[in-house]
Amino acid sequence: MSTRIFPTAKDAQNAFYEALERADLEGMMAVWAEDEEIVCVHPGGQRLAGQAQVRDIWRQMFAGGPNMRVHVAQQVVSAGMMVEVHSVHEIITVTGENRPRPPVVATNVFLRTAAGWRMIAHHASPAPGTPAPEATPAPTPKILH
Amino acid sequence: MSTRIFPTAKDAQNAFYEALERADLEGMMAVWAEDEEIVCVHPGGQRLAGQAQVRDIWRQMFAGGPNMRVHVAQQVVSAGMMVEVHSVHEIITVTGENRPRPPVVATNVFLRTAAGWRMIAHHASPAPGTPAPEATPAPTPKILH
Repeated sequence: MSTRIFPTAKDAQNAFYEALERADLEGMMAVWAEDEEIVCVHPGGQRLAGQAQVRDIWRQMFAGGPNMRVHVAQQVVSAGMMVEVHSVHEIITVTGENRPRPPVVATNVFLRTAAGWRMIAHHASPAPGTPAPEATPAPTPKILH
Repeated sequence: MSTRIFPTAKDAQNAFYEALERADLEGMMAVWAEDEEIVCVHPGGQRLAGQAQVRDIWRQMFAGGPNMRVHVAQQVVSAGMMVEVHSVHEIITVTGENRPRPPVVATNVFLRTAAGWRMIAHHASPAPGTPAPEATPAPTPKILH
């Protein structure tokens, strides 16, 4: 499917978020392992497993073209010889909105394969507010119209 | 902290859910790698990283004693020599309730260490309803009092 080689897990993760911002389906699938046990969970979404389901959800998400910027923050990395787990907060700003959405916490698992580092799991879910200590009151929902 | 050895990732995962059902803090922490980069996300919760934060959340959760049964379903396993990712649905029944809660999707990452297989990441979040096709309408929230 792809001959792109990622020398490090960080390279693979950078390519993942670049493909997400560009709504680049082939760029996205080049990050994933060619494996039927890959798993992907989007915030509030079903657990998707295998190449066909994972490709299909990205195809749907990217159908409208690029529509977001993603800032990766608060990263914690567990790094081994063959596997790395990157736990990140994704701060997403949708095109046309002047504030980022509430953060998403994501667990990204990368494996060192014969074809370089590839993603084998992405699990993302809404993160609650800001970490303690709470310096500011919780924001009230704002409806713009 | 613990000398318990898990010969397989499956053994470690079984011990994880047994400790969860028994509200057994030492049994739970024996499953985790002794590593400052372990990460744990409970449904709707903050991302917790490192031994101290992970131990503390389980201590809080287990403070009231055992209060649930957990059935693990729809497992997808990505297995390598050094790492396994187990994607599961957790069907939790809280003591005193006659129906399980809506399913939780969990990504459990295990590493083969010098001390056997250990968990390095647990990310759990609410799974939406049942997989398509939707045969039944979404359940309405029920308040028992």
